[in-house]
Amino acid sequence: MNFQIIFYIIGYVLKIEGLLMFIPALVGLVYREKEGLSFLFLAAVILLIGWLITRIKPKNQIFYAREGFVSVALSWIVLSLFGSLPFILNGDIPRFADAFFETVSGFTTTGSTILADVEALSHASLFWRSFTHWIGGMGVLVFILSILPITGGATMHLMRAESPGPQVGKIVPKIKDTSKILYIIYTVMTVAEILILICCRMPVFDAVTLSLGSAGTGGFAIRNSGLADYSAVCQYIIAIFVILFGVNFNVYFLLIRRHLRQAARCEEARWYGIIIALSTLLIFANTLKMFSTAEEAFRHAFFQVGSIITTTGYGTTDFNLYPEFSKVILVILMFIGACAGSTGGGIKVSRIVILVKSVFNELAQIIHPRTVKKARLEGKVIDHSTMRSVNTYMAAYVLLFFASFLLISLDNMDLTTNFTAVAATLNNIGPGLNVVGPLGNFSGFSDLSKYIFCFNMLAGRLELFPMLILFNPQTWKQPFRRRKELQNAEKTTE
Amino acid sequence: MNFQIIFYIIGYVLKIEGLLMFIPALVGLVYREKEGLSFLFLAAVILLIGWLITRIKPKNQIFYAREGFVSVALSWIVLSLFGSLPFILNGDIPRFADAFFETVSGFTTTGSTILADVEALSHASLFWRSFTHWIGGMGVLVFILSILPITGGATMHLMRAESPGPQVGKIVPKIKDTSKILYIIYTVMTVAEILILICCRMPVFDAVTLSLGSAGTGGFAIRNSGLADYSAVCQYIIAIFVILFGVNFNVYFLLIRRHLRQAARCEEARWYGIIIALSTLLIFANTLKMFSTAEEAFRHAFFQVGSIITTTGYGTTDFNLYPEFSKVILVILMFIGACAGSTGGGIKVSRIVILVKSVFNELAQIIHPRTVKKARLEGKVIDHSTMRSVNTYMAAYVLLFFASFLLISLDNMDLTTNFTAVAATLNNIGPGLNVVGPLGNFSGFSDLSKYIFCFNMLAGRLELFPMLILFNPQTWKQPFRRRKELQNAEKTTE
Repeated sequence: MNFQIIFYIIGYVLKIEGLLMFIPALVGLVYREKEGLSFLFLAAVILLIGWLITRIKPKNQIFYAREGFVSVALSWIVLSLFGSLPFILNGDIPRFADAFFETVSGFTTTGSTILADVEALSHASLFWRSFTHWIGGMGVLVFILSILPITGGATMHLMRAESPGPQVGKIVPKIKDTSKILYIIYTVMTVAEILILICCRMPVFDAVTLSLGSAGTGGFAIRNSGLADYSAVCQYIIAIFVILFGVNFNVYFLLIRRHLRQAARCEEARWYGIIIALSTLLIFANTLKMFSTAEEAFRHAFFQVGSIITTTGYGTTDFNLYPEFSKVILVILMFIGACAGSTGGGIKVSRIVILVKSVFNELAQIIHPRTVKKARLEGKVIDHSTMRSVNTYMAAYVLLFFASFLLISLDNMDLTTNFTAVAATLNNIGPGLNVVGPLGNFSGFSDLSKYIFCFNMLAGRLELFPMLILFNPQTWKQPFRRRKELQNAEKTTE
Repeated sequence: MNFQIIFYIIGYVLKIEGLLMFIPALVGLVYREKEGLSFLFLAAVILLIGWLITRIKPKNQIFYAREGFVSVALSWIVLSLFGSLPFILNGDIPRFADAFFETVSGFTTTGSTILADVEALSHASLFWRSFTHWIGGMGVLVFILSILPITGGATMHLMRAESPGPQVGKIVPKIKDTSKILYIIYTVMTVAEILILICCRMPVFDAVTLSLGSAGTGGFAIRNSGLADYSAVCQYIIAIFVILFGVNFNVYFLLIRRHLRQAARCEEARWYGIIIALSTLLIFANTLKMFSTAEEAFRHAFFQVGSIITTTGYGTTDFNLYPEFSKVILVILMFIGACAGSTGGGIKVSRIVILVKSVFNELAQIIHPRTVKKARLEGKVIDHSTMRSVNTYMAAYVLLFFASFLLISLDNMDLTTNFTAVAATLNNIGPGLNVVGPLGNFSGFSDLSKYIFCFNMLAGRLELFPMLILFNPQTWKQPFRRRKELQNAEKTTE
C-alpha cells in the first residue's frame, strides 16, 4: 500500500473541506449567530491541517486500484469526522455518535436524521447540513480531480472508486476536464433551482438549503414538517428538479453539445422515466380516497415517487399512512434508485435493467437454444465484465443488507422499521417506514446501530467496494514482493 | 413444442397419482370414514384418465430443454389440480381456491395452510396432505423417470428441470438407476423415522404423517398446536431427521458406497452444519430468558432452526414471540434454505456459498490484481456456466420476489406479513411472521393472492425456470423452422 499518496490525497480533501467550511461561517455571520464561530474556527484549523499534510509530497506515484478504493473510503470517513466537529463544538448536536451519523448522512446524501426537532438548529448548522449534501452529491474527489496535481493511473482509479454505476465513462478524454464539466452542469442546475424557488416566493434561506439538498439528492429538511408546508408550486418545482438530478449527467452533456438525438436515446433515462410515470399513476390511483382533491393526491404521489426513486427522501406527506400497496411501491423504488452517473443512490436503474434483461435472455436461450441473442443496453451488447461487475455488486449488496439487518435487530425494533432503516441507509434515501418514517427519526437506535448505519451509508454512496476493501484485513497484509517494489520506486524517485 | 410427448408424460403422472391416491382411501377405510370414499372414487377416475392418455404413444421423441421445463411445470400443476379434488368432494376444504392452495402447498413441500382448525379434518384427508409432502419432496418426475419408457435427452431434461440446486449431478451413469437409488434412500430414512417415533411412544398416525412431512421437508402439522404438544424426545428426533433430509442425498449415496472420506468432505453439507450450529446458539442465547429451563430454550432454538433452514416449517413454539434478533435470524435462514440435491427448498446453501465466495474473490482481485485466484466449491473451480446459472437464478428470484410482494400488498396486510408470506411460499417453508406466523394461516388473503402464492410455491419448488418458461408467451410462439422439423420427425417415425 502506498500510504504516502493516500495521506497526500486526504490532506487535499481536508484543505477543500476547510475552505468550504468558511461558507457556513459566513451564514452564521449573516444571521449573527454565535454558532457560526465554531465553523470559522474549525475551517481555519482544518485548512491548516490539510495544508501541513500536503506539504509532504509523495515520493512515488505508484497507484493501483486498491490505493484508489482505500483513498476514497478514507477520504469520506475523514471528511465526515471533521465535518461533524462543528455540530459538537457549537452544541447543536452534542453527542459524537449523533453528530457523526448526521454528517455521514449529509455527505452520503442520505438525509436520515437523528434530530427530532430540526428547527432548534442554528442557521449556520442547518446550512452546513444541506451543504454537505451538495458536496457529497457530485463527489469530493471528482471535485479534487479537477485541481489535484497528480497524474497517471491515480485519477482514473479515484474516479472509478467514487462514481456511481456499473460502467464508468469519461465524458471527454481528460478526467480533469470531465470533472470540471460535471461540476459546471451541477452548479448551474442548482443555481437555477434556487432562483426559480425564490421567484415562487420561497424564503431565500429555504430555497438555498432545499436546492442544495435536492441537487445532491440528499433529503435533509429544515422544518419539522418536512416539505409539507410549502406551496404546491414549490413542491412541484422541487419534485421536478430532484428527478432531473437523478438523470445520468451524460445526458445533459450531450444536450449541451446539441447531440439531441443521442441524448433522447439514453435507455437508462427512458426506463427511469417509465418507472416514475407508472409508480406515480399506481400510487395516485391507490391513494385518491385519502385526499380532498385529485390534484393533491397526484402531487403527493408524484413528489414521493420522485423523492424516493432518486433517493432524496424529502417528504410532503406522511407515507406511513399510505395503503400497503403504495408503501410497497415506495419500498421497491428505494432499491431501484436513480440513474448511474447521477447524484442519486440505490442499486441504479441500469443495473436493474441489466438484471431483468439477463433473465429474459436466459429464458429466450432455453426456449430457442439455437438462436444466439445477446442482451443489450444503450444499443451495445452487455459484455461479460459488465455482467460480472453487476452480479458481484448485487451479491455484495445482498450480503451487506442482511448482515446489517441482523445486527441492528439487536435493538429489538419491529421488522418493518429494521428492514426499511437498512434500505434507507444503504440506498442513501433518508426515511424508511414506521419508527424511521417521514416524521420519525433514527435517534431511538443504539450507538452500535448508528455506526452500522454510517457504514451502510458510506458503502451505499461509494458503491460498496471501497468500504469493503478498507475493512478487509487482506488489504493491510503487505506481501513481501509488493513492499520491495515500493521501496525500489522510492529509491528511483529520490 | 412437442405437445404429444408432454401430454404423454402428464398421462403418466396422472396414472401414478391415481395409484398413490388409493393409500389415503385405505386410511379412510381403517378409520371407517366416509371421506375415504372420495379418495377411492377419484383414485379410480384419475387412474383411468391417465391410462387413456398414455394409450396415445408420442409419434416422435424430439425433446429439448423447453419441453422438459414445460412438462415438469404442467405436471406439477395437473398433479395439484387433481390432488385437490378429494378435499372439495369430501367437503374437508370445500372452496376450490383453498383446496388448490393447500394441495400446491402440500406437493411443493411448503406447508403453508389456509386451515384454522386442522383437527377438524378426516384422517384420510390429513394423511393425503402429509403424503403430498412426501411425494413432492423427492419429485414426481424423478420417480417416474425410474419407470418411464422414454429414452434419450428427455430423461436428462426432465431431471434437470425438477432437481434442486445449481448443478445437476447424476449419482450413477444411468438416470434410471439414479432415481431408483434416490427413492430407496428416501424410503428407508422415512421408515426409520416412523419406527423411531413409534418407539418413543408417538401415536402411529402422528408418527406416520409427521415423518412423511419431515421427509419431504413439508411442514403440515395434524394438530392445531403444531408440534408443541409432543414429548421433548420426539421433538429432538424430528428436528434431527428434518436436518438429515436437508442434506444433499449424494452424501448418503457416498456413505452407502463406503466412500466415508469423500462424504465427509462435502463442503455444502459442512457449511449447512455450521450455519445450523451458529444460528441455534445465537437464538438459544437470545431467547434463554423466555423459557423456564435452558434445555427448553435450546430445544426450541434447535428445532426452529432445523425446521426453517430445511424449509420444513414445523413449529414447537410461536416464534412470533421471539425477540427481533432471533426472528431476523429465522428470516435469513428462510432464504438460505437447505442443501442442493436434498428435499429442502430455499435458495440453497451452495448458491449462497458460491455468492459469498465470488464477492471475496472480487475483493482479492482488487487487492492483488496480479494473482489469479479462482473461487472453488467442493475443491473444484466454480466454472463460468455455474456462476452464470447462479446469477440468473438470483436475478429471477429477486424479480419474482418483489413482483409478488407488490401484488399481494393489495390485500393491505402489514409489511412484515407480506414480506414473510412471500418468503415462506417462494422458499417452500410454510409459516412466516405476524398474520402468517406459526399459529396463523393464509386464509385471510384474497383468492388472487392465494393463486400468486401457488405460483410462488411451484416456482420455488421447481427452481423458478419451469414456471417462468410455462408462463412466457415466447414459449408458445412456434417458429416456422421448428414446426417443420417436428413434422419431418413425425413422418420418419411413422
